[in-house]
Order: sequence, then structure tokens, then C-alpha cells
Amino acid sequence: MVQGASRGIGLEFVRQLLEKSDKGHVIATCRNPDGATSLLDLKKKFMERLNLLQLDVTKESTIEAAATSVRESYGSLNLLINASGILSIPDVLQPETTLTKVEKSSLLLAYEVNAIGPVLVIKHMWPLLKVGGGSGTERKHAVVASLSARVGSIGDNGLGGWHSYRASKTALNQLTKTISVEFARKKDPIVCILLHPGTVDTDLSQPFQRNVPKGKLFTKEFCVQSLLSIIDNAKSSDNGKFFAWDGQEIPW
Amino acid sequence: MVQGASRGIGLEFVRQLLEKSDKGHVIATCRNPDGATSLLDLKKKFMERLNLLQLDVTKESTIEAAATSVRESYGSLNLLINASGILSIPDVLQPETTLTKVEKSSLLLAYEVNAIGPVLVIKHMWPLLKVGGGSGTERKHAVVASLSARVGSIGDNGLGGWHSYRASKTALNQLTKTISVEFARKKDPIVCILLHPGTVDTDLSQPFQRNVPKGKLFTKEFCVQSLLSIIDNAKSSDNGKFFAWDGQEIPW
Repeated sequence: MVQGASRGIGLEFVRQLLEKSDKGHVIATCRNPDGATSLLDLKKKFMERLNLLQLDVTKESTIEAAATSVRESYGSLNLLINASGILSIPDVLQPETTLTKVEKSSLLLAYEVNAIGPVLVIKHMWPLLKVGGGSGTERKHAVVASLSARVGSIGDNGLGGWHSYRASKTALNQLTKTISVEFARKKDPIVCILLHPGTVDTDLSQPFQRNVPKGKLFTKEFCVQSLLSIIDNAKSSDNGKFFAWDGQEIPW
Repeated sequence: MVQGASRGIGLEFVRQLLEKSDKGHVIATCRNPDGATSLLDLKKKFMERLNLLQLDVTKESTIEAAATSVRESYGSLNLLINASGILSIPDVLQPETTLTKVEKSSLLLAYEVNAIGPVLVIKHMWPLLKVGGGSGTERKHAVVASLSARVGSIGDNGLGGWHSYRASKTALNQLTKTISVEFARKKDPIVCILLHPGTVDTDLSQPFQRNVPKGKLFTKEFCVQSLLSIIDNAKSSDNGKFFAWDGQEIPW
């Protein structure tokens, strides 16, 4: 399951998961499947293997409904990628350049979408991941991979700014770590990891690409290849860890 | 200014700040000063030096009003202690023992009170702290000390659980670090620190004291003495750091 799959990195995950093998099912979720033209194009090519489901991380009922649908159709999951996220929305959310511009509404919105959303998805997919484990893969366990960001690292925060986005990703890191501890204690066959994709040429990063050094703006193709390699090779000892696209661990 | 001063650690900060010197003003804020019997008792003894102001961290207008009142009465601040915080409220908020019990409403409430609240207070007191710096103290700068908690450390999270509270304190750590970077870059005479008070015998910890090892449940008096010593000795190089009651730095 790729959650947040209508565009950007999520969409590219769906594409590569479908193309790298000639079997296996991919469930792609987004807020509005009927308007997700790129997913609908993929659906034409991978009719039997691609399943589009409606899911809005800010509406828990849609997460529950998606979980029910997956249980009825497949009975299990062996991979959950949380790819949804917000950084800026014109007139609504802008990364803050100074404390003076920090607003409660922005802090809450980023938290709801970037931290709470993925956690509620993990909560409802947990029973399916427990059943799935590594079945149908070369892994010994299911993987939950959530897209975090290096700016969510407190130890690495030398620039400041982007308060709402940073705090939401930092909280996602803590929540994922907390969940990973419970999965390990219960000996569930699930490994949770956090991924920093680098700065990738997507709609999300588009307004902020000006200051990216040459060679540091990745294509979606390269980014997702790198992240899938981390996911495919995830070991039990990686549970609860935070990796950059190149496999380097990022400090909290 | 001690924000969140009606009881617990905040109240004890007010008491010790008033008693350790025979001059200087203390501003104590809480949601309902008229019902804050312990503060009202202190007010009888320290009539001239203690100022009670209404402030609810979930209502930004009350924070702005408090800042206006301080500006008109004193024109500056040399210390801001954020002591407000929630962990559990019967029938409303309970520290989660498993992912299954994680609810969006709890995550949002803890975030609003424990992370957003202190940040909005710093936002509005910033101009006053800039004017105040270390005036009237032996410090070279104003201090902003926010009560965090060791369970907010991701690196130190070996037990799991308490999702809402943990994530809110982790986010507070990131937000405070972000703010400290801006203060340093602007060369403002303000040092921001995060403090872990230990487990202290207060209303907040009361339901959870059973599992505290002997000798590890501190009195408010001891805790605040320890934290005031860290505050009094805070150096510029401590800006953006997270300290336990004994002065040890805590990993993010």
C-alpha cells in the first residue's frame, strides 16, 4: 500500500512497485481517486494489479474504510508506505521564516497531516501488516516506511525556520519510534522506518528549489529507486530508525 | 514571568523566585487567577513584588494581552519560564499504553497545550525579552526555560507508549531549537533552554508515581532549586539545549 499516491514520490513508488515485478498487487490511496489522472493512467496498464482506494489522512473514517476494503480483498499487507505530506499551500500554509510568523493554525494543520495522519494509517493497517509479515517478499517482515525529512532532525537543525513543518516531522519521528518499540516488544513481524528522500523534483519542493545546490535536486525515479533499496534490505535491527536516501542514519 | 504558575512546579518557581531575593518582580500567569488560592496566598505576603496575570496558552489573545500588560507595567522581561503542561485529564486525555488507543483528539490536545502554547508565549514575549536581556541579574542575557520531559527524547525512548505526550514534548524541543537558532543569528540577548525536571511529586505525576523507583520522586522544592541553578548559570553556549535537573544534557 502506498498512501498519498496521486503525485510526487508516492506516485513514483506505485509505478516502480508495479514495474519492478510482474506479479503482486499495489494499493494506491489518495484523497480523490477519480481526479488522480496519473494513477488512472497506470490503472489502464496494470488493471489487475493496481487497486485505487480513497483515503484522506485527516478523516479517520476513510482510513478505517480503506483497511476494511484491504482486509476483504487481500487479508494482509506486506508493505505500507506513508508518502502523503504538506509543506506549503498558497494563502493557507507557508514555511515560516521567523517566529513572528508562527501561527497556531499552521502548526495544527502540519501536525494533523504530517504526523497524526500517518500514525492513524499505521494504527488501522497494523492487523493486516501483522498477518502479512514478509509474505511474497524476500524480507522476513512487513515494512512500514514513512516519509520524514532531514529538517525534522533536531540535532541537525542549524538553519532554523520552517517551524510547523519541522515540528510535524519531528513528532512523526517520535511517534514512529514509539510504535516501533511496541511492535518489537510484541514480536510482530513488522519493521518501521523513517525515510528522508532528499530534495526531490516534485510539486512539494517546487517553490523551494532555488537554493538547492547543483546535483542535489533528485529526480523522483532516482529517489524512489534509492528508497526502495532501503526498504527491500530493511533488517529487524533497522526498526525505529531514520535513514536518508543513501542509507545513512540521520540523528534525531 | 512564570507561565503556568497556579500549582506544581510553576507555583514553586514563583515561591522560590520571590524568596531567594528581597527585590525584583515576579509575574505569575495562569488560566484563572481568581481561583488560584496558592498564588493568592503568596500575593498577600509579596503584595508589591508579585503580579498575577490571566493567560491561557490555548487562547492566543490572552497571551497578547499579558504581553501588553507586562510592557505597560515593566517594559521588559529577563526570564520566562514555561511551566504549563498536560499529561492526563480524567475522561479526556490518558497516556496511551498501545497504538490501538491512540486518538487524533488526544494528539491534538497535547500538541496544542504542550508544544504550541509555550511557543506562542515566547513569540509574544520576545520583544520584552530582547529589551530585558540579563538586566537585574548576573546573567548576560534573558533566559527562556521551557519544561520538557525526558520521555520527549526520541533517542532515549526505550519503553514506548504515551504517544500524545511524548510527541508534544518532542515537538516542543524542535520548536525551541528552531527559535534558539533565530535568536542566536539575530544576536538577541536571549538563551532558550529545555528542562527535564525529573519525576516530581505534583498533581501531573500523581497517577503515575507507583512505578517510580525509591529516591527518584523529587519534591518540588528540590526540583526547582536544581532547575533555578541551571537557569542562573545558563551560558550563551547553552542556547537551544535540553538539560535534566542535574545539568546533564539529554539526547534528542
